[in-house]
Amino acid sequence: MALLRSYVSGGWHTAPDEGTPLHDAVTGEEVARISSTGVDMAAALDYGRRTGGPALRELTFHQRAALLKALASHLREHRDELYALSARTGATLGDSKFDVDGGIGVLFAYASKGKRELPNDTVYVDGGVEPLSKGGTFLGQHIATPLRGVAVQINAFNFPVWGPLEKFAPAFLAGVPSLVKPASQTAYLTEKLVELIIESGLLPEGSLQLICGSVGDLLDHVTPQDLVSFTGSASTAQRLRAHPVIVRNAVRFNAEADSLNCSILGPDATPGTAEFDLFVKQLTTEMTVKAGQKCTAIRRAFVPAEQLDAVAEAASARLAKVTVGNPGSEGVRMGALASLEQREEVRRSLKALLAAGSVVYGDPDQVEVVDADTERGAFLSPVLLKGDPERAEPHEVEAFGPVSTLLPYTSTAQVIDYAARGQGSLAGSIVTGDAEFAREVVLGTAPWHGRLLVLDSDDAKESTGHGSPMPQLVHGGPGRAGGGEEMGGIRGVLHHMQRTAVQGSPKVLSAVTGRWIAGAPRAEGTHPFRKSLAELKVGDTVVAGPRTVTQSDVDHFAEFTGDTFYAHTDPAAAAANPLFGGIVAHGYLVLSFAAGLFVSPEPGPVLANYGLENLRFLTPVKPGDELTVTLTCKQITPRIDQDYGEVRWDTDVTNADGDSVAKYDVLTLVAKETE
Amino acid sequence: MALLRSYVSGGWHTAPDEGTPLHDAVTGEEVARISSTGVDMAAALDYGRRTGGPALRELTFHQRAALLKALASHLREHRDELYALSARTGATLGDSKFDVDGGIGVLFAYASKGKRELPNDTVYVDGGVEPLSKGGTFLGQHIATPLRGVAVQINAFNFPVWGPLEKFAPAFLAGVPSLVKPASQTAYLTEKLVELIIESGLLPEGSLQLICGSVGDLLDHVTPQDLVSFTGSASTAQRLRAHPVIVRNAVRFNAEADSLNCSILGPDATPGTAEFDLFVKQLTTEMTVKAGQKCTAIRRAFVPAEQLDAVAEAASARLAKVTVGNPGSEGVRMGALASLEQREEVRRSLKALLAAGSVVYGDPDQVEVVDADTERGAFLSPVLLKGDPERAEPHEVEAFGPVSTLLPYTSTAQVIDYAARGQGSLAGSIVTGDAEFAREVVLGTAPWHGRLLVLDSDDAKESTGHGSPMPQLVHGGPGRAGGGEEMGGIRGVLHHMQRTAVQGSPKVLSAVTGRWIAGAPRAEGTHPFRKSLAELKVGDTVVAGPRTVTQSDVDHFAEFTGDTFYAHTDPAAAAANPLFGGIVAHGYLVLSFAAGLFVSPEPGPVLANYGLENLRFLTPVKPGDELTVTLTCKQITPRIDQDYGEVRWDTDVTNADGDSVAKYDVLTLVAKETE
Repeated sequence: MALLRSYVSGGWHTAPDEGTPLHDAVTGEEVARISSTGVDMAAALDYGRRTGGPALRELTFHQRAALLKALASHLREHRDELYALSARTGATLGDSKFDVDGGIGVLFAYASKGKRELPNDTVYVDGGVEPLSKGGTFLGQHIATPLRGVAVQINAFNFPVWGPLEKFAPAFLAGVPSLVKPASQTAYLTEKLVELIIESGLLPEGSLQLICGSVGDLLDHVTPQDLVSFTGSASTAQRLRAHPVIVRNAVRFNAEADSLNCSILGPDATPGTAEFDLFVKQLTTEMTVKAGQKCTAIRRAFVPAEQLDAVAEAASARLAKVTVGNPGSEGVRMGALASLEQREEVRRSLKALLAAGSVVYGDPDQVEVVDADTERGAFLSPVLLKGDPERAEPHEVEAFGPVSTLLPYTSTAQVIDYAARGQGSLAGSIVTGDAEFAREVVLGTAPWHGRLLVLDSDDAKESTGHGSPMPQLVHGGPGRAGGGEEMGGIRGVLHHMQRTAVQGSPKVLSAVTGRWIAGAPRAEGTHPFRKSLAELKVGDTVVAGPRTVTQSDVDHFAEFTGDTFYAHTDPAAAAANPLFGGIVAHGYLVLSFAAGLFVSPEPGPVLANYGLENLRFLTPVKPGDELTVTLTCKQITPRIDQDYGEVRWDTDVTNADGDSVAKYDVLTLVAKETE
Repeated sequence: MALLRSYVSGGWHTAPDEGTPLHDAVTGEEVARISSTGVDMAAALDYGRRTGGPALRELTFHQRAALLKALASHLREHRDELYALSARTGATLGDSKFDVDGGIGVLFAYASKGKRELPNDTVYVDGGVEPLSKGGTFLGQHIATPLRGVAVQINAFNFPVWGPLEKFAPAFLAGVPSLVKPASQTAYLTEKLVELIIESGLLPEGSLQLICGSVGDLLDHVTPQDLVSFTGSASTAQRLRAHPVIVRNAVRFNAEADSLNCSILGPDATPGTAEFDLFVKQLTTEMTVKAGQKCTAIRRAFVPAEQLDAVAEAASARLAKVTVGNPGSEGVRMGALASLEQREEVRRSLKALLAAGSVVYGDPDQVEVVDADTERGAFLSPVLLKGDPERAEPHEVEAFGPVSTLLPYTSTAQVIDYAARGQGSLAGSIVTGDAEFAREVVLGTAPWHGRLLVLDSDDAKESTGHGSPMPQLVHGGPGRAGGGEEMGGIRGVLHHMQRTAVQGSPKVLSAVTGRWIAGAPRAEGTHPFRKSLAELKVGDTVVAGPRTVTQSDVDHFAEFTGDTFYAHTDPAAAAANPLFGGIVAHGYLVLSFAAGLFVSPEPGPVLANYGLENLRFLTPVKPGDELTVTLTCKQITPRIDQDYGEVRWDTDVTNADGDSVAKYDVLTLVAKETE
């Protein structure tokens, strides 16, 4: 039988020993063997730091995003190969799609976020300029730069594709190489994934490594610039968190661990309502997708005490229709657990839960299966329990399989308290048509949750459901759930970067960030609207004006636009306004005149003004005031897939006293080359 | 001698035993005794959670900010009492101001940030709405809510006022009660600080507790909702980080520990330049302020090899002018270390450093002092060393006193490498007049630093200096420095809150956040500009129009404003524009007409349109297009100290096809009550 390989230090490594066998979850046959014997862990880390890191840091965020997109497309073309292996983990085709397509979706999402929300640059500018002095010669600006180490990613057995990809994507986008360590049980699927990635030739060498088998002494070699992220059991998370080298080097450690996720049925959602049905359907789906082997699956289903029987009955009826068996066979809705050992573990947990409850549906020891054998395949019936919410077990024992417990509650305050007894969860859901109940429960339970879903008839059709982490949203939870945070869009990228407050003069901060900052040098000369991206430089400036705003301009603008607000038209009323004390020009008149001053009319590289940001009117403009506008090139963002890019212009409209009357950013599209 | 008290569970606690004596750093006299015997640590935590937390969470961010401001003013009035005790820690008046006024400054800064950057609400909305579906019925929004525990704050001896306040301010603003544990050596000053705070009666009961003496079993009682932050030695930080209860509960742990901070002189800054002088002056200042007992002080001064002698000479000349002695005596520039034990510790570190270097200035064992006794007072001469940067000691041994080491370098790449050998620092500085050198060194060293200062002749006058953490900027560093982050403006507030991704329909997300979200219900009726803040509700809407934009409107606007950009005026050229394909109306014309449509002219509660944000022009407007504008109240922020507040309006300008041509937020000031 094939020995799984590791991909380290630029090549595939096969262990010199026999390895440990891995078994098909359905048939019990040996699928592969696994061993990391002979992998030089310290060398692999060093290779990532010295090869992958520098290669990634040479690329801009947009270039990395484009590679992620290309990789996602490549994997999509090969997903059938992944589905085939996935079936051997016990997964139905639906389960496989959840894992495989879900993982590819994370790559696409990060590619898109990277392009839209990050600069086409290597430095991330975090937050605004912080004024630190009255005269404006001393400022602060936070930046983020990639950590110079390797992101060590230790994954769980239940998502052999999605798991590695959701950790890899933000690290890659940040410019940090990854070292992936899958859980042994399903590592053959991750090995295939990495093989597809490496064979694509898309990624810079060293940006992704794989260790199949034990991590050996890997963690003894992590430095303060490396990161460790872990998904798996709380006990292992605790052991890793307290690892002496991780502790000594204050290594960034992120854990996603156990979670007794709750779903709460609102008191409004009585039988016959859409929300009642949504609650029951979601509960049974969460129990059976991936045979309940999801960190986010619903373990605690809180229902108003008076609805407990109705929910039990409706859920049991749905569960009775779930055909269990060989995931390749027709009609099968739920496959096997990942291994016989896993099934034993779930049965042990069920025994603990039954000390504080009773079975509503299913038999922990028996299940009818299609085209399979319950001795050799790790099959288990869905098991729905009801329990006593005042007991500890339902809030503490996670049966990592198709198992949930119904728990009654009698008031909003009580269900918020019960939810908190999970001591920190990845995900929770509230199923209600009552937005006020939703608000109260969301705000009451939020401190214990990484994600909360409110399901109702408004969003049900488009909802991605209780158990689906989304790349746009944080995934992780406090306390028992590990205290970590993954994904969350760009937040997950920044997790791999060091935030640094840089203090200096405007000139220096401009040099560091590549953006013009108020007070930095300006260059006048050719009108900057005549310059293509190839010619334009940050700091290029045009000063235009002055133009006097007359009373008749204001009168005319009011009449022409219909904006006859009293402060522009009624001297007595305007005089009584506490902020103006007399007639003022329209803000939009000021903007329009400013544009008339800074425009360069003839066709040229500037294609369009597509937006405007951060406008503040700072000083009222009175008839007779003279306006001057200073427009300065602030930021240049070439688009890698277009022949133009975005240019942001700092715009400062001043009066004859030199006071700013309006400040804003003008956003334009500018051609890369002059035709 | 007085026994320091703890303030726990709503009252002052005096230990029943004798306590341990604390000595005046200058005279060796006993100042106070310290003991936490008898404090019920579990009860104190519980009291904070059950009393302080709920009281704080009832206040909005703006109300908490106002309390911080009042507290800052109160402490400023009493600062002489703090200076007097501070002198007994060995501090000069300048040192005391650094600690006391610095701490009060943090309170003022957080008060100001809270008012300007946080909503007048109890929920923090984190980032934008995340679209999760095509139809827009299912969205995501991150929120942050206060953790329901207590922020345990373990402080260092060197900043008995600033240290507790810089940890307390962001926790308080977040809505999380604090439990302060000062280092014993200087706890008498922190006890006085807390006494002044409690006596002011300004803070809700339970929002601040104090433990003078050992923490006992405190950490055995922390839960997943509590936080622990620590400033002090790396060894203690490691012990706390690995504390079994902190590990088991994934308690948020923030450490600020050892740091071999560097200062780098640029190759351009040769003797005779302003930057050379700035470097030398800053180096000697950092050595002597607080007798060098600052986590941020310069320990490694990197200078171009050819300038080593010149820097050594100039620095020695400055150090020779530093008078050491009783901080109360005239002419004294540097006082004592905090204790005789501390002096012994510094002497031990000096011995280790001297294994890899030699003394340039000062004698570790001898110092001339004014009005004091070097046997009873913890006096030490400033000691400047020069060392070999290829040896480990200069990068690893932190002598926590008036001690720095000069280290030569020969290239930019080399000094970046040397800086990194500190394995993570709180602060670094680069002194250069060359912005490109600054850029290269900042980006090269940023991954190892929490803060970097670029000092030059442009910012020197206003610079706050290498060693001063600022409340607006993050304080903390990776690796050896503890891997933590404090302050950083609102970032430090969010550290005390749980981020939760909330998924739901627009209606539900609006209910949760208190903000209108596109797709949520709108209410038409009375024009919302006729409503005061007392009457206005989120979702109140006016739909106005349509108005047709004619060719003559466009021609006229071009002529009136001077904005004769070809896309508005030259049909042939406009047709060639890749984005428009023909004459388009000015964006500013669209904005102006929209304002003419939604305005309500007569005097009323709307006082002014003070700004505009996030404008995007989405569809070109052609002559003949009809515009309709929908204005919806999105967010209401009453100002607690004015009779008006801010209202943000979602603005959507559509054409006859219903396509959005422009979207933006209009910002107005609106009176609280109609007159």
